[in-house]
Amino acid sequence: MIILIQCKDRVGLVAAISGLMAQKNINIVSMREFVDIEAKQFFARLVCEQNRDPEILLSDLHLVLPENALIKINPEPEKKIILFVTKEYHCLGDILVRHHFKTLGAQVQCVIGNHDVLADICGRFGVPFFLITHEGKSKEKFESELLAAIKKYPNDYLVLAKFMRILSPAFVELFPMQIVNIHHSFLPAFAGARPYMQAYKRGVKIIGATAHFVTNDLDEGPIIEQQIIPVDHTYNITDMISAGKEIEKAVLAKALKMLFEDRVFVYNNKTIVFD
Amino acid sequence: MIILIQCKDRVGLVAAISGLMAQKNINIVSMREFVDIEAKQFFARLVCEQNRDPEILLSDLHLVLPENALIKINPEPEKKIILFVTKEYHCLGDILVRHHFKTLGAQVQCVIGNHDVLADICGRFGVPFFLITHEGKSKEKFESELLAAIKKYPNDYLVLAKFMRILSPAFVELFPMQIVNIHHSFLPAFAGARPYMQAYKRGVKIIGATAHFVTNDLDEGPIIEQQIIPVDHTYNITDMISAGKEIEKAVLAKALKMLFEDRVFVYNNKTIVFD
Amino acid sequence: MIILIQCKDRVGLVAAISGLMAQKNINIVSMREFVDIEAKQFFARLVCEQNRDPEILLSDLHLVLPENALIKINPEPEKKIILFVTKEYHCLGDILVRHHFKTLGAQVQCVIGNHDVLADICGRFGVPFFLITHEGKSKEKFESELLAAIKKYPNDYLVLAKFMRILSPAFVELFPMQIVNIHHSFLPAFAGARPYMQAYKRGVKIIGATAHFVTNDLDEGPIIEQQIIPVDHTYNITDMISAGKEIEKAVLAKALKMLFEDRVFVYNNKTIVFD
Amino acid sequence: MIILIQCKDRVGLVAAISGLMAQKNINIVSMREFVDIEAKQFFARLVCEQNRDPEILLSDLHLVLPENALIKINPEPEKKIILFVTKEYHCLGDILVRHHFKTLGAQVQCVIGNHDVLADICGRFGVPFFLITHEGKSKEKFESELLAAIKKYPNDYLVLAKFMRILSPAFVELFPMQIVNIHHSFLPAFAGARPYMQAYKRGVKIIGATAHFVTNDLDEGPIIEQQIIPVDHTYNITDMISAGKEIEKAVLAKALKMLFEDRVFVYNNKTIVFD
Repeated sequence: MIILIQCKDRVGLVAAISGLMAQKNINIVSMREFVDIEAKQFFARLVCEQNRDPEILLSDLHLVLPENALIKINPEPEKKIILFVTKEYHCLGDILVRHHFKTLGAQVQCVIGNHDVLADICGRFGVPFFLITHEGKSKEKFESELLAAIKKYPNDYLVLAKFMRILSPAFVELFPMQIVNIHHSFLPAFAGARPYMQAYKRGVKIIGATAHFVTNDLDEGPIIEQQIIPVDHTYNITDMISAGKEIEKAVLAKALKMLFEDRVFVYNNKTIVFD
Repeated sequence: MIILIQCKDRVGLVAAISGLMAQKNINIVSMREFVDIEAKQFFARLVCEQNRDPEILLSDLHLVLPENALIKINPEPEKKIILFVTKEYHCLGDILVRHHFKTLGAQVQCVIGNHDVLADICGRFGVPFFLITHEGKSKEKFESELLAAIKKYPNDYLVLAKFMRILSPAFVELFPMQIVNIHHSFLPAFAGARPYMQAYKRGVKIIGATAHFVTNDLDEGPIIEQQIIPVDHTYNITDMISAGKEIEKAVLAKALKMLFEDRVFVYNNKTIVFD
Repeated sequence: MIILIQCKDRVGLVAAISGLMAQKNINIVSMREFVDIEAKQFFARLVCEQNRDPEILLSDLHLVLPENALIKINPEPEKKIILFVTKEYHCLGDILVRHHFKTLGAQVQCVIGNHDVLADICGRFGVPFFLITHEGKSKEKFESELLAAIKKYPNDYLVLAKFMRILSPAFVELFPMQIVNIHHSFLPAFAGARPYMQAYKRGVKIIGATAHFVTNDLDEGPIIEQQIIPVDHTYNITDMISAGKEIEKAVLAKALKMLFEDRVFVYNNKTIVFD
Repeated sequence: MIILIQCKDRVGLVAAISGLMAQKNINIVSMREFVDIEAKQFFARLVCEQNRDPEILLSDLHLVLPENALIKINPEPEKKIILFVTKEYHCLGDILVRHHFKTLGAQVQCVIGNHDVLADICGRFGVPFFLITHEGKSKEKFESELLAAIKKYPNDYLVLAKFMRILSPAFVELFPMQIVNIHHSFLPAFAGARPYMQAYKRGVKIIGATAHFVTNDLDEGPIIEQQIIPVDHTYNITDMISAGKEIEKAVLAKALKMLFEDRVFVYNNKTIVFD
């Protein structure tokens, strides 16, 4: 049994929670807990040995926790996800293989692409692929078609696995902290077009990737995972892009694993990841 | 206030601890807790906002915890340590600089060397250096001289900062989980003499370092920290040794930081590190 | 045009090679060169802009290089490989996806498994799978069946992508420096059975993987690539194995990329990798 | 004997260089060579076994290389450097220890600080320290005092080892590619004040450091070295700054090693590092 709790911090919270567990004879196998002292916010993830009626436990927990506490008991163990792609296969391929062997921790409901080049591999894994081109359409029209496709399937998360279109604020608002994106990251950051070309011209020595939630608040939402790989002067642009894809694949895989195992909390535009 | 607890696991431990804290109106700022399920052993590290009389709190905690619980309240914030060295300066220099600027988290009481080449730098930092040569002596005689020097100073830990002598089981038994060592590590491991030569001949692509407690149980005690750096075919032996020193310095620094901040527990020949 | 050269070292080798290129008006785009001073062995990899008749260039190169120089001009750009697997999919899946999108740098001729669980995914990518069970057979019989399957396809390399059988010296001798293996690596190394259990019990802080050629000379042949990932006390055995698979996948992918781009030389049981 | 060459690329350069070496019976122990194809620029670093009269070799090399080739033969093996510091000791301490044990590859001529807190440690290592405060002075006055101090010593490089003042374009122009700086780097980059506070608020998962030459062309000159360390939500600002210092120390050390061993070339605002 997994229990997730987020609420205002106050003295005695851990006691209240674990006292209730003890009283109900539930053994806590692992408990990760974090207090954001500035934000006075409390976060906990419990793994317990025994299962109990979640509705009763939920109301009991609410009795001992501050008002408006967010509590999830036994969140869906197999998330349902929809993937958005364009032409690049590296993230999609990795996800599909894990999905196929049932180690993704989520079920890929379908894949939506604004190009058709990835339809073939989806078909090979028996995953529905929908081509929804953005060409010759307004963004409203394009996104309304995306929404129509999304609605056919239950979903917990939309994963932008190298989806090269920017979603409108109106679209993003429909899926708060439910859209995950992966993109390259450089030191220093390069605004504007062709960031790899800029990074190459600048002679960067590392290339990174960031997996994050998509929000409208900032140019980039809460960061879930970041990693880098070293590069050097012998890398031409093609090599840098190739290296970038490897790290994007690894970072998205790690972020999704954390997310699907319910290890990620979000507060004040940043994440707590109990990895 | 820092509280460290290690005891047999049972239902309700976290509740018992945090309940007591709540009752005493002590706010838990952070709590790291881990249960080794196989070993049925419970470990916790609490940081609390308020200070309370440690003796009273200790006896109160014993009342709510299993028999034989190991409890430390406010462990000495500034550990007292004695360094053992031979000729290599890289770990010693790093520790002395941190010591000098009071960011080591420990006070270096003295340095004991079986060679005198490092006496000079100790003097520059005002740290006593004792030359105790092993030459022309039995190991018993050598170690009895070490012990005599050690006894002049209070100490929490002996840090072997590239001390190239093997300590006898009798010596090691006097300082259980109080001796920390750093050494190079390779994949695969190379037994026998001149491990760097073996690693070079074998063409390893990474060189690692391991910081560990010294015990007599195994060829190597509980591991506190391990890191590696990549190397390649252009590294000759000198380059590999040089790279190895950089990683040894970093790994020992990290291990000592964990240790001096009371983040390390030991059980069944392995460590729990709440980093 | 790619040119690979390995020979005894002597004064003037680079001049001899590049002089010939200049004389033939071939521009050297990149030249990686390494001398193993101890072994007095010279290695070079040249990428040139122009293509020339390889037979003429080969004989011209032999004229200016020491006797018995090993020279390859324009090695097959698309290697032909045969994969050996057992039950674990993580390396196979990654290779098949790259193969499918033609970014592997090699053509997977077929997959041979001693279990059938991976037949399905091979079928999905249109790659022939042969089940050759080892059960109820002598090693000779088993390997003769492997050889019969191998012979149906041209091949440059056999890739053991988590193949859990040990190949006999007689088999290995048939494919000198043509068999690549991937396995986990720990610090310290754990001999004997169930290495992950040993690593877990020992509380290792990093888990590595090594890709290497398979030879009979040593317990492990020349290392092509090694990388690690950090783990901690919260990892149980399942977590450690899962982390190990991620790093095995990444290390094998990097090793194969180096190999298929003709960046790997072998000498005296170690590799020179011009990455 | 070390030889550094930078010139326009053309067919036959390697042949010309190595041919001359062969003719003079000089054995090339290692040769690193790189062509920036876009920039049509050639870079080489040779290590040779024999020493020859550098003046004769220089003029001979000029005969076989394109006009305006930059050639250095046996660059000063022990660079002379001047360190600029403010209050933070981590980079300075590391450099002074290496200097003391003669493994820095450079002689620290003196240290200039705009605060006096680091005077003590310089004194302990017998390195002259000059306090030149910026307070109550125009930047012109401040920098003229810096220049007066610099002029007392020969120097190859000025190393800004956490010097917290921005140097004027006029000052920077006096030392082209001779000023090295170290600073933290984040993904994404944070402009404006208090970058660690911004990184903390943003929940970054890695903290990096960049060592680079100081130029006036861009907000940041050619990058020599970059590395990162992982952080997580449990890091408060103090922890992040502390982690940042460790990585700054390591990155500056690596960059200086490359520089002092004459492994760094600069062209078009980026570096070629033959590491």
